[in-house]
Amino acid sequence: MKKLNVAMIGYQFMGRAHSNAWRQVGRFFDPPIEPVMKVMCGRNPEAVRDAARKLGWEETSTSWEDVVSRDDVDAIDICTPGDSHMPIALAAARAGKAILCEKPLANTVDEAEKMLAAAEAAGVPHMLCHNYRRAPAVALAKRMIDEGRIGRIRHYRGTYLQDWILDPDFPRVWRLEKAKAGSGALGDIGSHSLDLARYLVGEISEVSGLLETFVKERPLEDGSGRGKVDVDDAALALVRFENGAVGSIEGTRFAPGRKNYNRFEINGSRGSLAFDLERMNELQVYEENGPDSGFRTILATDAAHPYVDGWWPPGHILGYEHTFTHTVLDFLHAVHRNAPVAPSFEDGVKNQRVLDAIERSAASRTWETI
Amino acid sequence: MKKLNVAMIGYQFMGRAHSNAWRQVGRFFDPPIEPVMKVMCGRNPEAVRDAARKLGWEETSTSWEDVVSRDDVDAIDICTPGDSHMPIALAAARAGKAILCEKPLANTVDEAEKMLAAAEAAGVPHMLCHNYRRAPAVALAKRMIDEGRIGRIRHYRGTYLQDWILDPDFPRVWRLEKAKAGSGALGDIGSHSLDLARYLVGEISEVSGLLETFVKERPLEDGSGRGKVDVDDAALALVRFENGAVGSIEGTRFAPGRKNYNRFEINGSRGSLAFDLERMNELQVYEENGPDSGFRTILATDAAHPYVDGWWPPGHILGYEHTFTHTVLDFLHAVHRNAPVAPSFEDGVKNQRVLDAIERSAASRTWETI
Amino acid sequence: MKKLNVAMIGYQFMGRAHSNAWRQVGRFFDPPIEPVMKVMCGRNPEAVRDAARKLGWEETSTSWEDVVSRDDVDAIDICTPGDSHMPIALAAARAGKAILCEKPLANTVDEAEKMLAAAEAAGVPHMLCHNYRRAPAVALAKRMIDEGRIGRIRHYRGTYLQDWILDPDFPRVWRLEKAKAGSGALGDIGSHSLDLARYLVGEISEVSGLLETFVKERPLEDGSGRGKVDVDDAALALVRFENGAVGSIEGTRFAPGRKNYNRFEINGSRGSLAFDLERMNELQVYEENGPDSGFRTILATDAAHPYVDGWWPPGHILGYEHTFTHTVLDFLHAVHRNAPVAPSFEDGVKNQRVLDAIERSAASRTWETI
Amino acid sequence: MKKLNVAMIGYQFMGRAHSNAWRQVGRFFDPPIEPVMKVMCGRNPEAVRDAARKLGWEETSTSWEDVVSRDDVDAIDICTPGDSHMPIALAAARAGKAILCEKPLANTVDEAEKMLAAAEAAGVPHMLCHNYRRAPAVALAKRMIDEGRIGRIRHYRGTYLQDWILDPDFPRVWRLEKAKAGSGALGDIGSHSLDLARYLVGEISEVSGLLETFVKERPLEDGSGRGKVDVDDAALALVRFENGAVGSIEGTRFAPGRKNYNRFEINGSRGSLAFDLERMNELQVYEENGPDSGFRTILATDAAHPYVDGWWPPGHILGYEHTFTHTVLDFLHAVHRNAPVAPSFEDGVKNQRVLDAIERSAASRTWETI
Repeated sequence: MKKLNVAMIGYQFMGRAHSNAWRQVGRFFDPPIEPVMKVMCGRNPEAVRDAARKLGWEETSTSWEDVVSRDDVDAIDICTPGDSHMPIALAAARAGKAILCEKPLANTVDEAEKMLAAAEAAGVPHMLCHNYRRAPAVALAKRMIDEGRIGRIRHYRGTYLQDWILDPDFPRVWRLEKAKAGSGALGDIGSHSLDLARYLVGEISEVSGLLETFVKERPLEDGSGRGKVDVDDAALALVRFENGAVGSIEGTRFAPGRKNYNRFEINGSRGSLAFDLERMNELQVYEENGPDSGFRTILATDAAHPYVDGWWPPGHILGYEHTFTHTVLDFLHAVHRNAPVAPSFEDGVKNQRVLDAIERSAASRTWETI
Repeated sequence: MKKLNVAMIGYQFMGRAHSNAWRQVGRFFDPPIEPVMKVMCGRNPEAVRDAARKLGWEETSTSWEDVVSRDDVDAIDICTPGDSHMPIALAAARAGKAILCEKPLANTVDEAEKMLAAAEAAGVPHMLCHNYRRAPAVALAKRMIDEGRIGRIRHYRGTYLQDWILDPDFPRVWRLEKAKAGSGALGDIGSHSLDLARYLVGEISEVSGLLETFVKERPLEDGSGRGKVDVDDAALALVRFENGAVGSIEGTRFAPGRKNYNRFEINGSRGSLAFDLERMNELQVYEENGPDSGFRTILATDAAHPYVDGWWPPGHILGYEHTFTHTVLDFLHAVHRNAPVAPSFEDGVKNQRVLDAIERSAASRTWETI
Repeated sequence: MKKLNVAMIGYQFMGRAHSNAWRQVGRFFDPPIEPVMKVMCGRNPEAVRDAARKLGWEETSTSWEDVVSRDDVDAIDICTPGDSHMPIALAAARAGKAILCEKPLANTVDEAEKMLAAAEAAGVPHMLCHNYRRAPAVALAKRMIDEGRIGRIRHYRGTYLQDWILDPDFPRVWRLEKAKAGSGALGDIGSHSLDLARYLVGEISEVSGLLETFVKERPLEDGSGRGKVDVDDAALALVRFENGAVGSIEGTRFAPGRKNYNRFEINGSRGSLAFDLERMNELQVYEENGPDSGFRTILATDAAHPYVDGWWPPGHILGYEHTFTHTVLDFLHAVHRNAPVAPSFEDGVKNQRVLDAIERSAASRTWETI
Repeated sequence: MKKLNVAMIGYQFMGRAHSNAWRQVGRFFDPPIEPVMKVMCGRNPEAVRDAARKLGWEETSTSWEDVVSRDDVDAIDICTPGDSHMPIALAAARAGKAILCEKPLANTVDEAEKMLAAAEAAGVPHMLCHNYRRAPAVALAKRMIDEGRIGRIRHYRGTYLQDWILDPDFPRVWRLEKAKAGSGALGDIGSHSLDLARYLVGEISEVSGLLETFVKERPLEDGSGRGKVDVDDAALALVRFENGAVGSIEGTRFAPGRKNYNRFEINGSRGSLAFDLERMNELQVYEENGPDSGFRTILATDAAHPYVDGWWPPGHILGYEHTFTHTVLDFLHAVHRNAPVAPSFEDGVKNQRVLDAIERSAASRTWETI
């Protein structure tokens, strides 16, 4: 079978999740190309060696520039913080590598556009890893919408709630620094709600946004005092879609008890759908059919549900990391067929434009168009 | 025992709910005054006679002006559409009657302010019937917040979702006419979300609103063709509270499968609360206390919970109309003690100002202050 | 309209619930006969006078023998502990009164059979108050079963869990005395699970039972020391139905956190149904229809659902006591039409025979046939 | 690091699940020994080669006798149908191999006892794979019980409901043949309920059982007609525990809509616990603490919860196969320390004795002691 030599840049949380996907995809599915976990790259040589050994990579490197230009590397998987996505992707595109990039695509619209332009100019396959699109229940929601099961969509209600920085003495990690993360809850988790909105409902035309930082200073990680939090703790937006639907999107890290509550509800003219990532294997569906109608819980674990035929019998639930495996599977298909795959860098640009409009609106205190 | 002769103006949905409360309050509680269901008033003499007989009123009348000026009437309960609230309340205040008024207090801020001024000038007891404040689970939420159980509040998320006009051939009833109802989902159900926000979180300082009418024409009730729907089908708002909390409020009649989904979630610095009217007897509570914390469901049916000691043993749930009985109970206490009771007409004015700001914001496309 | 003079024997928990039903039935429904709350009877003259005033009865008496023989009394509603059901019912039947009797019909099979024989000999209407049959969601379950929606029934799983005597220092009230209550959890709450089993599935042919008393002594109510608990704290049974279904029935007062958890699940050849009294307005339904099937929650508050048209619009939930109102409504129809109504005393006899078989089985340690 | 050469006998459903565990355990945890996936064994040479390639085994064999006697094999993982567990385990023990055996340990008590005796005589590590003990939420339940959080246990209610053979034309697969599977729902899924009962509550002293076969004939897999189903479709039992608790255990394959509904509820003197495998990451806990108590949902995904520190941050749920990874992890620790690990073959024997007593009781129609 044709092989694809993969290099991963980054090795922390997302590095672990993507590595597992590369390792597992061929154990449960039949990808048309066999991925080879060639080299893992990170700045700290010892740490990257430990990670590579643990996660199953053949070699390590401390220079992404070297890795990206290696002839024996076919694809680059970018798992670093957002501020380095653009330079890596630009170099990878120039070197003709297929690119899988963790979300958000970039920290600004400008960077995202440059990445898209570079990938298109080079003609390389490019994919953005918004993994939740490939939870079976979410992909099933998409299928049901496309089949017209809930009719014309009128409402989208997306919230992504977490509570991991509730403690005001939680340190100012990189995700709380604008220079590295671009934004706070907005880009980290609000962007998931937004991506699902675009995936399931359609393009957004205008937004009214609100950003808030509840804890404005936090201890520095090196113990040298306290530093400013210059990103949002919470981001809320009202949105209008091009198709006439209206909605709301929210991301916050200040919702006690909500650990990973990426929830949406969609109301159409004939039915409704609801999903909550904490119960990732379930899709709530309402189809209007008289007084005995009701929301039903589809346990999206049947072989007929998207991606499930690779796994277990009905009722044997999947976990978080499986969504990455499905992403990598579709990336391999796209590379094999040399065909576009969604979400692509174009989706990344579109997402970034909406995030940008929300930030502008929060500043201007008026609706902003995309 | 002292008695209170009550006159009810109106006899439809709210008339039935309030009548039940007047009848039942003394059967389960010990009000300090005994209400006498003296006279029910409505324009259609036959219909009001039928209703009065069914609902337990001694007499009927077709003139609210007469009723309001009767010496043997002590209190006026206003259950008519919003466009008639002001004239009735003004006359009742002038005649020195205690007034209970169904929400929304009025169709405009101006009307609401006049009603408050009249009631205060006359020194009569006045109460606004926002009955959901007195669901035991909601009153328990208020108590827990006041006790500091969830700390400082940062988020309010209120949605009131229904689906009763989903069918585009559902007729243009009075609730869909601006002249009678004032507004659509905004004033009818969004106002409940708003009132609970003010009750549980505090005063709102500014809003960004969005109004949408999905079905712009509907069959007239008299079969004479189709008429314009000039109220909103859906109303959404981002809100900022004076205490620094941020939130969202939504009312829609276009959410298939949501029958009476008046839901809120509140996140504080130490915990969270959530409530859904369709499961009215339950309060979801999260108190942060280490890794074994979790949202728990309090079945608010214990004698220690607000209003429950009048009813049944734990686990024997209450229904929708009980919330009106609790409202009437507290109205009777207020009349007896000649003391203010919340929500009062002042709350009605404040609610109306926020509703008005949402409407203004939807038109101006900018944030509006209250 | 024809009137029915009602006398109630007993005035405590069940007396309150039944009184409310007599008062309310005509306010929300159109019964063919108007009930008159004539006389309430109890042994303590002061207590019964207080109760009658509170609950709306015209007169009081301390002698049920007098009441039962009054010419101006048409119907007897028996709300006393089980040990007095038989003498009252026998006298009422002899006097030609219609009889509504709170469950369980009697404390023994023999008593129950005598009551049925007396009522049949006298030709009087007789009804057993197993109120949960008339929760709209339960009546809807019955309708769906009768329509064949879940096919041939194979499994019934009934549990009625409470926790009100969990504290070992909770006193030995009458419900814990065999002489008064007949049995413990078995007759008090297990009998509800059993009655629903017979209503929804069919007649039971044989049982294997287990009874357990966890707390064998408790403080006496008069403070004079401790007394023996001679009834069961928990009762479990495996059952076989005549139609081939198998099942289990359980009642316990030792399930912390379960306040009134009267739950059943029924599995048929084409679908399943589930109900929980703590969420009394909901029916869970599964209809097998391919991989996108799922349990759906019917909020049984639509006018098309049993009994709901008398009450409120969809989504406005009903409470515990409404089930008694529905019972009284059907009793009035039965009296009016002089027609049998279920559950009748015959159901009471059949229930008692199963309860008796469970007790016998618990002693014999073998399966017992009914 | 020390290595352990593993041979797997069997390669179907359980083979896939166990293989994944061997592959993944070192990627997420730090086992003290490194497992080497040496050889996979099955009767069909082509099928086993395909499976081995897919699942990551170095070699294949068609003779378990050969494999078990190889010097370069240290551990045997038995994943075949129950009728072959004993001969394989006996040979493995004689050869001094560590043994991991899929449940049920054997098809009869006699076989199970022989397996235990052989393992003990040989002094080899032995473990039974009852994987659900190692779902984090279940292991957390065990920890909370051991800490006394729910007090003395009085009730266990275990049901394992599935619906995969609901269709009467589903073929007579090996799990429906007594000669291969030993029993039907009883040994396949009821045994899980039973094992959790013994794990969480304690030893069972006596049982009253019921077995039922609803569909008595099914199409043969080879299309040659219909064959008899000689195992139970549903198994129910009442049980008494040595510590005084009472309970029920049920397994059925005829519960439409229940895909993998392995649920238990445990009631103690101070609280309750409930778990449902379809929501495997959640544990419901009730701790009695006054009127504001309620069942809370612990999302068992915190690093402080059993096994979770190897995986992802809070709220990132685990899937079905992770339970096997945890099992293999503990097996490796046991082999390394040469220490017993539960569940062992001794647990397998005890489980088998209870299953046997249920079968005897179903035949004798009386309670049977273990």
